[in-house]
Amino acid sequence: MKFFVQHPYKERIELNIGAITQIVGQNNELKYYTWQILNWYFGGKKYSSEDLSIFDYEEPTILDEVGEIVKRNSYHYIDISSFKDLLEQIEYKKGTLAHAYLRKIVDIVAHLERINEQVELIEETMNRHINLNCGQVEYHLENRPLTLDQLLTKNFSPFFTIDNMNLSFEWVSNTDKLSLFLEMLDGLLSQTTEKYLIVLKYIDSFVSEESYTIFYKQICQLVKKYPNLTFILFPSDQGYLKIDEENSKFVNILSDQVEHLYDVEFMYESVAKHYPSNNFPTREDFRISLETVTPYLLTKMLRQPSLSLVDSVVLNILNQLFHFNYRIRYPQTSDEKLLQKFLESKN
Amino acid sequence: MKFFVQHPYKERIELNIGAITQIVGQNNELKYYTWQILNWYFGGKKYSSEDLSIFDYEEPTILDEVGEIVKRNSYHYIDISSFKDLLEQIEYKKGTLAHAYLRKIVDIVAHLERINEQVELIEETMNRHINLNCGQVEYHLENRPLTLDQLLTKNFSPFFTIDNMNLSFEWVSNTDKLSLFLEMLDGLLSQTTEKYLIVLKYIDSFVSEESYTIFYKQICQLVKKYPNLTFILFPSDQGYLKIDEENSKFVNILSDQVEHLYDVEFMYESVAKHYPSNNFPTREDFRISLETVTPYLLTKMLRQPSLSLVDSVVLNILNQLFHFNYRIRYPQTSDEKLLQKFLESKN
Amino acid sequence: MKFFVQHPYKERIELNIGAITQIVGQNNELKYYTWQILNWYFGGKKYSSEDLSIFDYEEPTILDEVGEIVKRNSYHYIDISSFKDLLEQIEYKKGTLAHAYLRKIVDIVAHLERINEQVELIEETMNRHINLNCGQVEYHLENRPLTLDQLLTKNFSPFFTIDNMNLSFEWVSNTDKLSLFLEMLDGLLSQTTEKYLIVLKYIDSFVSEESYTIFYKQICQLVKKYPNLTFILFPSDQGYLKIDEENSKFVNILSDQVEHLYDVEFMYESVAKHYPSNNFPTREDFRISLETVTPYLLTKMLRQPSLSLVDSVVLNILNQLFHFNYRIRYPQTSDEKLLQKFLESKN
Amino acid sequence: MKFFVQHPYKERIELNIGAITQIVGQNNELKYYTWQILNWYFGGKKYSSEDLSIFDYEEPTILDEVGEIVKRNSYHYIDISSFKDLLEQIEYKKGTLAHAYLRKIVDIVAHLERINEQVELIEETMNRHINLNCGQVEYHLENRPLTLDQLLTKNFSPFFTIDNMNLSFEWVSNTDKLSLFLEMLDGLLSQTTEKYLIVLKYIDSFVSEESYTIFYKQICQLVKKYPNLTFILFPSDQGYLKIDEENSKFVNILSDQVEHLYDVEFMYESVAKHYPSNNFPTREDFRISLETVTPYLLTKMLRQPSLSLVDSVVLNILNQLFHFNYRIRYPQTSDEKLLQKFLESKN
Repeated sequence: MKFFVQHPYKERIELNIGAITQIVGQNNELKYYTWQILNWYFGGKKYSSEDLSIFDYEEPTILDEVGEIVKRNSYHYIDISSFKDLLEQIEYKKGTLAHAYLRKIVDIVAHLERINEQVELIEETMNRHINLNCGQVEYHLENRPLTLDQLLTKNFSPFFTIDNMNLSFEWVSNTDKLSLFLEMLDGLLSQTTEKYLIVLKYIDSFVSEESYTIFYKQICQLVKKYPNLTFILFPSDQGYLKIDEENSKFVNILSDQVEHLYDVEFMYESVAKHYPSNNFPTREDFRISLETVTPYLLTKMLRQPSLSLVDSVVLNILNQLFHFNYRIRYPQTSDEKLLQKFLESKN
Repeated sequence: MKFFVQHPYKERIELNIGAITQIVGQNNELKYYTWQILNWYFGGKKYSSEDLSIFDYEEPTILDEVGEIVKRNSYHYIDISSFKDLLEQIEYKKGTLAHAYLRKIVDIVAHLERINEQVELIEETMNRHINLNCGQVEYHLENRPLTLDQLLTKNFSPFFTIDNMNLSFEWVSNTDKLSLFLEMLDGLLSQTTEKYLIVLKYIDSFVSEESYTIFYKQICQLVKKYPNLTFILFPSDQGYLKIDEENSKFVNILSDQVEHLYDVEFMYESVAKHYPSNNFPTREDFRISLETVTPYLLTKMLRQPSLSLVDSVVLNILNQLFHFNYRIRYPQTSDEKLLQKFLESKN
Repeated sequence: MKFFVQHPYKERIELNIGAITQIVGQNNELKYYTWQILNWYFGGKKYSSEDLSIFDYEEPTILDEVGEIVKRNSYHYIDISSFKDLLEQIEYKKGTLAHAYLRKIVDIVAHLERINEQVELIEETMNRHINLNCGQVEYHLENRPLTLDQLLTKNFSPFFTIDNMNLSFEWVSNTDKLSLFLEMLDGLLSQTTEKYLIVLKYIDSFVSEESYTIFYKQICQLVKKYPNLTFILFPSDQGYLKIDEENSKFVNILSDQVEHLYDVEFMYESVAKHYPSNNFPTREDFRISLETVTPYLLTKMLRQPSLSLVDSVVLNILNQLFHFNYRIRYPQTSDEKLLQKFLESKN
Repeated sequence: MKFFVQHPYKERIELNIGAITQIVGQNNELKYYTWQILNWYFGGKKYSSEDLSIFDYEEPTILDEVGEIVKRNSYHYIDISSFKDLLEQIEYKKGTLAHAYLRKIVDIVAHLERINEQVELIEETMNRHINLNCGQVEYHLENRPLTLDQLLTKNFSPFFTIDNMNLSFEWVSNTDKLSLFLEMLDGLLSQTTEKYLIVLKYIDSFVSEESYTIFYKQICQLVKKYPNLTFILFPSDQGYLKIDEENSKFVNILSDQVEHLYDVEFMYESVAKHYPSNNFPTREDFRISLETVTPYLLTKMLRQPSLSLVDSVVLNILNQLFHFNYRIRYPQTSDEKLLQKFLESKN
């Protein structure tokens, strides 16, 4: 699937959307713009005239491959740009994940019915007591049954405990916060076929690489389990981009050019063809190299990233494959042997 | 019991307070002032500096016979000056009669308990479903049990129906509105020994004399039934003052002088002594005459009320008994016989 | 002019409306109903289904002589049923008399313009200081000029002072409160030709007869001065009805029958014809008698009002003129001479 | 200056604080914790019992070198973690930078005085018109002068224009948003000697490296100009850490160990001593190398960063200097010459 995201003066930004889409690249402003539009579009933003002025006062659209408008309510939309956003989703306010999650747990309905039976009995009791006989007019009470929403928002609060001590959500480790979010999402999706779109922006800055790797595996399992679930990730740090055979096509690069990656296998073979030596990395080493260099693709950098020799070569060949005419240079030193020996030596 | 109500520059206003106190007299401003202070005092008004300026910035007080301050929270206080006030008391907002009334109906508690059992079961169900295992931290929901207040204010509404049609409180006849109010009061007081003070101002303007008479009988029965119930009435129209042996001492006259009536029997005998003829009215006729003339006592009127000959005489003698030196004159006519014959003739 | 006020099951209530209309009579419930409808109708009430149920869910109407609907926005409408209402009108909230009054004082506009010149200068100063040069985008402030409403409601408060001491509106004498209201009304109407309808209900219970008489004279002068001003009064106590040649036709009696009075002169002559003696009251005495007996017309009373002999006769003849078949009886006594002598004697 | 930030179960986190402090390192959770505490501490958070439970219900503290508690109100505190935060600071709500900024522009006071002169004139005009003479009581209006706060929040709005078209803050480029923020800060600080602490978290993810470099230079100039200004930066991506002779000591590394860097010159010489060859990088190359490797210091990584040979060596030597016993390995390849030749070749 494609999203063609409207831009005020550029061509529409083409995003290749899969179950898990990742958006990287050195054009931070364009990534931010893309996030902003996704957020407003699927988040149901009511536009002001200032919001629309750059679009000639027409609401911006997102189109699909065949040029149809993607409906703004195509998805239940959740944006997580900070842990404040996550906290909001965990609380039981209307419109949050936690609220939707609890609503779907079917067994509550029976309890609710029993509650409202009591409410009706109270009505009867009250009306029996009031027993007012004022002329023609009859006075009585009528009950409004309790609703699930009313109960959830007023009568239940989430708590986090450690050793029987309640603690603030802020003190739960970020890794645990993400787990909780995914677990709720899992619970909710087990009860619904409605479509959910989750956008996570730079959330990886807040957890260790190890935790993020676990998190990423969890979302991979989730999207396999639930075809109605879609993630769009904006990874932040070097090293957090995840590339495998399945999702590589949904890695979108927003740099000087906007492209998405090809299949890993295809890229492996293409790069191998141009590789200057026969000692081409293994498939796994190539995949890791891809994860490292993709954020630097398609961009002319003021300051070159510090990369290993192999990664530098792979980066240059990939740019070439995308017909992007730019090469990073590699600082030649005469003392490589000494340096390498140093690195290999034990402490 | 006495209330000595502070006044900014006059002596304290002495009110003789019984189970049913009535306040009449031609000094409308003083009656209004008295009502205002009662209302602020027992209604728990938080005074501003402007409120207190006329009292040298000290809160006004009401004293009892022995000079002790009557506590502002001596009574649950309800002021009814208009049917808007009555409507407020009938609705289920906190602090209203209806709210207190429903709260006291004991059988609700059992229902509420059963509701909260269900709420706890929901909590259990939810926590079983959530079953989150994120590191050391345990995540769970805690319920806040529903309270009676929450249920009453959110889940019950009063309705008035006539022929199965709901209608606004405004369309209920004023007589029925008052009945409803008294019936609620009755219900509430059957469950509590806390003291209630009800002030009704000019409420008689809105019902027929017949309805008001019934209303008055009802409150007489109520105060007999509940020693913790006290009424202060400000009757408005001529004819709405109710005098009997029991309450006559609690009829306070706020005119040029502030006094309360004596026992009916004592006044009957005192007036009889000064009556110019032997044909003195019966006890019942005297009582009715008292009801008629009391509002005009102790005042020098610009314009004399139109009163029957006998009432005029009684008024003058009563003023004399209170040492109030003023007589209304009676227009003498030479044609009384003709006029009387006319009145006696059939159509 | 006539108002035909819709009633749910009776015929429309016919009110004869003049510059000053007075509504009296023993049918308190009907008077209350009439007030309620006037209040909702001209007060712009948005009806609920409960409000309309007694009218078969159609909005009630008020018709004029020719059967046309009187528009609900025909008048600026002010209802004063209590001094709380009066206080509201005196404060500067939007929609109150005081607010309208101050808005009309033309000289403020010039000051406001000068204020907004300064606001613009502040804008200029600020924008000069900000002087932001961020790429293509220009940043600046824009001012929203102060409005009269904003100034009046936020920056002015009414105060009552006595000997340089601020005091609450409640402590201003009721007589003074009414004066203030009329003075504001006068000021406002001197600046506008828009129509104002003022309904005053039982307001006379709160001031002395003397003050009420002055108040009534003031409103007579106001309606002469401003043809766009209309009063509807619901007088409460005996003695507060004001009848003169000009307004007698606009005295509406809501009792067992609904009627309005005739011209005083016509009634004088009609009553004279049926008077049982030649000693008919003077025109002025007859007028006073009319003021006394009119509230008791057209009704069968459980308990007769205490009236002088002459007033009793006039009441009976007037009922007869309205074809209302009811006579009050007069208690005959054998000792009239003695009683009268007593009344005439000095202390 | 030092901040010793309390931690629930670890030792206090030692931060070396300068005019510009940077916090990097692979321990993302610890960095997040540090930010959270700074934010709550200087942001004036009112703690709940859940917030304090992990601290044995005592408020956490930040101590300085000599063990004194750093006062929570030591600084005006501004936290910018997202552009939503930046937007808030740009709007004119109370407590924001923009509000403080505009308040300090002295020339407004004169305008405000002129406005309030007009308000007083309005008061006079009104009081002259009211001219109420009701008994003893005098009625008048009193003005409440407009305040700067009232004017700023109610009567001015910020606008962004491009080609005379207003556009939303969201559409201003992130680079321009930051410029605007700094310009306001500059304006504000030119008028005050009060201390400001600005915390910027991962803000660099949203702008190009080039823009961030300009931004960093601007804040360097600002802290030189204003000794009462302090920044704490949490840089996000590789390449955004800025190291120079002046600030290197204030680069804090939160990884497996918590340390701060030494003087650049000292590190240059220390590393040179251990460097395996004589071909040691120039001072400038070393500085760039430092910027590259510092975020990876003091941590054992699951996955090694891709670094050039020289950077890898510098990283290892630096770890050694900090007595951190860990070395990254460098993948040896037999084809280096070929790869290097490839990189040097022109397209």
